[in-house]
Amino acid sequence: MSNASYAKPGYTLATYRLYDDKADFRKKAEGIAVGLTVGSWTDLPEVTRQKMEKHLGLVVDVRPHEPEGAAPGERYADITIAYPELNFSRDLPALLVTVFGKLSMDGRIKLLDLQPSAEFLQAFSGPRFGIAGVRETLGVDKRPLLMSIFKSVIGYDLDGLREQFLQQALGGVDLIKDDEILFENPLTPLERRVEVCVDAAREAEKTTGQKLIYFTNLTGPTSKLRENARRAIDAGANGFLFNVLSYGYDAMAELAADSGINVPIAAHPALAGAFYPSPYHGIAAPLLLGKLTRIAGADLSLFPSPYGSVVMPKEENLAVQAALIDPSLPLRAPFPVPSAGIHPGLVPLILRDFGHDVVVNAGGGVHGHPLGAAAGGRAFRQAIDAVLAGRDLAEAAKEHEELRIAVERWGVRNA
Amino acid sequence: MSNASYAKPGYTLATYRLYDDKADFRKKAEGIAVGLTVGSWTDLPEVTRQKMEKHLGLVVDVRPHEPEGAAPGERYADITIAYPELNFSRDLPALLVTVFGKLSMDGRIKLLDLQPSAEFLQAFSGPRFGIAGVRETLGVDKRPLLMSIFKSVIGYDLDGLREQFLQQALGGVDLIKDDEILFENPLTPLERRVEVCVDAAREAEKTTGQKLIYFTNLTGPTSKLRENARRAIDAGANGFLFNVLSYGYDAMAELAADSGINVPIAAHPALAGAFYPSPYHGIAAPLLLGKLTRIAGADLSLFPSPYGSVVMPKEENLAVQAALIDPSLPLRAPFPVPSAGIHPGLVPLILRDFGHDVVVNAGGGVHGHPLGAAAGGRAFRQAIDAVLAGRDLAEAAKEHEELRIAVERWGVRNA
Ligand SMILES: [Mg+2]
Ligand SMILES: [Mg+2]
Repeated sequence: MSNASYAKPGYTLATYRLYDDKADFRKKAEGIAVGLTVGSWTDLPEVTRQKMEKHLGLVVDVRPHEPEGAAPGERYADITIAYPELNFSRDLPALLVTVFGKLSMDGRIKLLDLQPSAEFLQAFSGPRFGIAGVRETLGVDKRPLLMSIFKSVIGYDLDGLREQFLQQALGGVDLIKDDEILFENPLTPLERRVEVCVDAAREAEKTTGQKLIYFTNLTGPTSKLRENARRAIDAGANGFLFNVLSYGYDAMAELAADSGINVPIAAHPALAGAFYPSPYHGIAAPLLLGKLTRIAGADLSLFPSPYGSVVMPKEENLAVQAALIDPSLPLRAPFPVPSAGIHPGLVPLILRDFGHDVVVNAGGGVHGHPLGAAAGGRAFRQAIDAVLAGRDLAEAAKEHEELRIAVERWGVRNA
Repeated sequence: MSNASYAKPGYTLATYRLYDDKADFRKKAEGIAVGLTVGSWTDLPEVTRQKMEKHLGLVVDVRPHEPEGAAPGERYADITIAYPELNFSRDLPALLVTVFGKLSMDGRIKLLDLQPSAEFLQAFSGPRFGIAGVRETLGVDKRPLLMSIFKSVIGYDLDGLREQFLQQALGGVDLIKDDEILFENPLTPLERRVEVCVDAAREAEKTTGQKLIYFTNLTGPTSKLRENARRAIDAGANGFLFNVLSYGYDAMAELAADSGINVPIAAHPALAGAFYPSPYHGIAAPLLLGKLTRIAGADLSLFPSPYGSVVMPKEENLAVQAALIDPSLPLRAPFPVPSAGIHPGLVPLILRDFGHDVVVNAGGGVHGHPLGAAAGGRAFRQAIDAVLAGRDLAEAAKEHEELRIAVERWGVRNA
C-alpha cells in the first residue's frame, strides 16, 4: 500500500488522534485503511486487487508524537486515511459510519477532522443564508450581531413569553432564540408562540426601527420536522433553533435543503459535550460544531464560549470559528455564536477574538441588567458601537447610562 | 428544595457521575435541578413558585465518592435528578436535550442512567418483535441464535454477495446481516440485494430446513428511510440493520412504530465509541446501547463483545445485557448481540456469561474456517448444541469434523 496524494479527487480524508503506548502506528493506520474499506488486501489474488483497488483506503499521513521518556498514556499519532467516496453514499450518516463507525470503539481514538472532496460536498446545499444572508435579512452590513435568549420559558404562558420577548426586542437585539429545552407544550404551542413573538417583534420595531429574527425551537418527531417548520413559517416564523445532535446531522441537512423552509437555522450544541471534551474519544469540537454543522446547513452555530465557566479552551473555540468560516469550503459560512457567560464588558474581547462576523449571544447579561432586559440589550449595543468606534469601553460608559450600569455590575474584561 | 421520592409518577430520573475535586456536590445537584427546568427558584416570589413547582426538577440522590487522600481527579459523586415530564415532549431528542443537552458541556460529567416513568414510556411502542418475536419468526424456541456477517461487501457485485450469503446460510446460521458500511451503491442496490439474498436463503433452506432473517442495511436520507424500508420489504426483506446513532434514536423509534415495517430491526453500535468509553464524558454503554436502544425499538442490539481486543469490559457488557432484558421496563426485550472476536471455542463462555437468550455473532469465526464459511457456521451450531447438551467442547469436537477443525484453529476459551 503506498501513500496517495491527499489531493486525490474522489476521496474523503479523515484524521484521527490515536493513543497507544506500544502500537506500530503505521501498521495500525494500514489496518484501518484496509479494514474499513475492502476488508482484506494482502491475501487477495492480483486479479481481485485490480478490481478492488478503487475501493481501497489509503494511508496518507502518520505523525507520531513520542516524547522522550513519555509517561504511559502520552504516546499518540495523528493519522490520516483517505477513504474512496465510491464506498459510501452522499450523506453524513454514511460518511460518519464509514470513517468512525466501528473504529470509534477501537481503543483510544478521536476523530479530529474530515476533508471530503469538493465533489462529495456538491451533494450538500449547506447554509441557505450564512453570514451574508443573515446580514441581508436584517439589513445589518458589518456590525457584530446581538442575540438574546429568554430568561425562563418553562411554565410560562403566551403572555409571559410575549412580555419577555418584547423587552428583549426593545433593547435592540437582532436575534432572539427560544431556549433549547422549550418543546411542544400546551402553554406555548409552536404556532401560537410564533404568532405572539412575531407580533411583539413588530411592536418593538416601531420603537427600534430594527428587523429581528426569532429562532423558534423546531422539535417533535423526526418525520414531522419539515411539516412543523412549514406550520411555523405559515404562522410567521423567520428562523429556527435546532438541536441537531439529538436528531442527527442529516435531519438538519434535509431542513436546510428544503426550499420551502426559507429561513435561517441556528444549530444548538445540546449533547455536544458527550462528544468533544475527552482527548481520547469522540469527535473534536471544530469538526463537530464547526465543519459538520456547516456542511449540514446551519446558518448559525452556537458553541460554549471561552469566557464563562470554561469547558472549551479558547484555542479550540477559535478552531471552531475557523472551520465555520474557512474559505476553502465551497459552502456558505455560518455565524459563529460563542455562548454562555457573556456580559457587555466582554464585548471588546469577543470582537478581538472573533472579529466582527460574530454573534454576541447573551442571556443573563441581558436579563440581569439592573434596569431590566431592554436596558441590558441597549448596554450591549452601546458596547458594540463603542468597540467599533475604537473607543475604550470605560470611556463610552460615561456617556451611556445602560452601559455604565452594566460595567458597574459586571466589569470590563480585556483578556 | 426537598428530596422527592423517586417513585413519583410524572418524573424521569437521570443519574450522572460528576467528577470535581472541590465542588459541593449537593449544591451542584440543586443547580442542575433548577437550571435545567425552571431556570431560577430562590429568587422567585411565592406566588410564582406555586405556579412553577410542578415544573421544578428535584434532587433525588447525591452519593459522593471521596476516598481518603484521593488524588486529583478521583473525587466524584453520583447524583440523581428527577425531571418533571411536563417539561418535555414524549420523544427521545426532547428527553436527551433536557437532561443532558447543555449539561453535557458542563465539566466532567457522564450520563449513567435514565428512568422515565411508565407513563412516559407508553408513548413508545418499543421493539416490535424482541427476543420472543424473533424466536417465533425463526421457529427456534430456546437455543441461542447464530448470526453471521458478510466477509467483504464493498466492491462485490450481486453474484459475489449471493455466493457469500449462500455459503453462510448453508452453515445453518439463523441470521445474516449486511456490513454496516454497505450503503446504496450501483453494484448491490437495495432491492436487488434483497432479492438475491432472499433467493439464496430459500435455496439454502432446501438443505438446512431452516428459516433465516437477513438484516439489510437500511440507509439513505432520513426522510427516505421509511420509503426505503417499504421498497426493501416489497422486494422480500425480512429484517433491517440500522446505524441508529448516525440518525438519532428517534428515527429508529419511528421505524419501529410503523406498522408497515413489520420486520425486526437490528441496531448497530456504529459511532457508539464516541459516547461511552470515557469515564468523564458521554453516555454510559448500558444506557446508550441498552435502555435507549430498547426504548427506541431495536429487536437486536449489537455491542462490542468482551472477548476480542477488548474495549468494553465484561462488567459493562453484562450491564448492557441487563438493560436490554430488564423485566421492569414495560417494553419487549431485544436480543443482546455481543460482537467481534467470536469463534466456536468461545461458545461455552458466551452462553455462561449471557445465558441462552443471546445471539452468537461471528464474522471471521465463520469465514475463517479452514473448510469455508458453511463449515464455519456448522462448527458454531455444533458448539452451541454441545453446550446445550452439557457436553465438553473438546469432547464434542471429536465427533464433529467442522468443530474439531475450528477448535484446532482457534482453541477453546473457558474464562
Ligand atoms: Mg438554554
Ligand atoms: Mg461490520
